[in-house]
Amino acid sequence: MQDGTFTSAGHLHETCRGDAYARDCPTRQLLDRIGDKWSVLILLLLGEEEMRFSRLKQRIDGISQKMLSHTLRSLERDGLLTRHPVATVPVTVSYRITPLGRDLLGALRMMIDWAETRMSEVAAAQARFDRERVPA
Amino acid sequence: MQDGTFTSAGHLHETCRGDAYARDCPTRQLLDRIGDKWSVLILLLLGEEEMRFSRLKQRIDGISQKMLSHTLRSLERDGLLTRHPVATVPVTVSYRITPLGRDLLGALRMMIDWAETRMSEVAAAQARFDRERVPA
Repeated sequence: MQDGTFTSAGHLHETCRGDAYARDCPTRQLLDRIGDKWSVLILLLLGEEEMRFSRLKQRIDGISQKMLSHTLRSLERDGLLTRHPVATVPVTVSYRITPLGRDLLGALRMMIDWAETRMSEVAAAQARFDRERVPA
Repeated sequence: MQDGTFTSAGHLHETCRGDAYARDCPTRQLLDRIGDKWSVLILLLLGEEEMRFSRLKQRIDGISQKMLSHTLRSLERDGLLTRHPVATVPVTVSYRITPLGRDLLGALRMMIDWAETRMSEVAAAQARFDRERVPA
C-alpha cells in the first residue's frame, strides 16, 4: 500500500506519507477533525486545566449534551485527551489533555486569536461582497 | 446588541466581543470555516503563489469542481482571497491570498505540520481505543 488509508475499523493507517494534498491521505481527515469548532474549544479549555463534563458544558455556551459526548469520545479515540474517574458520589469523570493534544494547542490558539482579532475585517469583507453582488 | 450575531444577510456583526465560548459569537462560525480542510489546503497553496482554478483543482487531489468553486467563493466573501482576470483566451481568473488571509497562514501551517508529523501517534491511539472497546 502506497498511501495511508482508513481501515475498516476507521483508524488511520500508519503507512501514509503525510501529504495532506493527496486524495487518500488520513492527514486530511485529521485536519478536518482538529479544525472542528467544538474540538478546538474543548482542547483549549482542557489546556487550561482538567475538567468534568458538567464544567465543560457550562463553559461552552450552547453545546448540546450529545455533541459534547460525541466530540469528547472522538478526541479520546484520537489520543488527544484521557478520562479519569473522580471519587464523587456517584463517580464522575474528569477529562485531561494528553501531551499529544498539548502539542496542538499552539496552532489552535493562533487560529482562535486570528479569528477573535480579525473578525471585524471579515465582517466588513462579507458586507462588501454581499453589497456588490446584490443589484441596487 | 451585546453579542455579535449573524444578520439576515449572513455576515458577521461587528459588535461581537470576540469570545468563541459564547453561544452567538461569530468567532465560532469563523473558526469552523477556517478549520475546514478544503479552506486550509486552498489557503496554504495560495500562500505559495497565486493560482488559477484548474491548477488548484490539480494540486488538491480529489476535490470536486463544485466544492472548489464553493470554497473559493466563501473565502473570497470572507476577504481571505481575491480574484484577478488573466488575459488568456478565453479570459480566466487567478486567485490571490489577501494580507488578512496571509496572517492566518502561520496557524494553518502549524496545524498541518502537527497533523502530518503526529499522524502515526493518532493512528496508534485509535487502534488501541478500538481494540479495548471490542470484546475478544
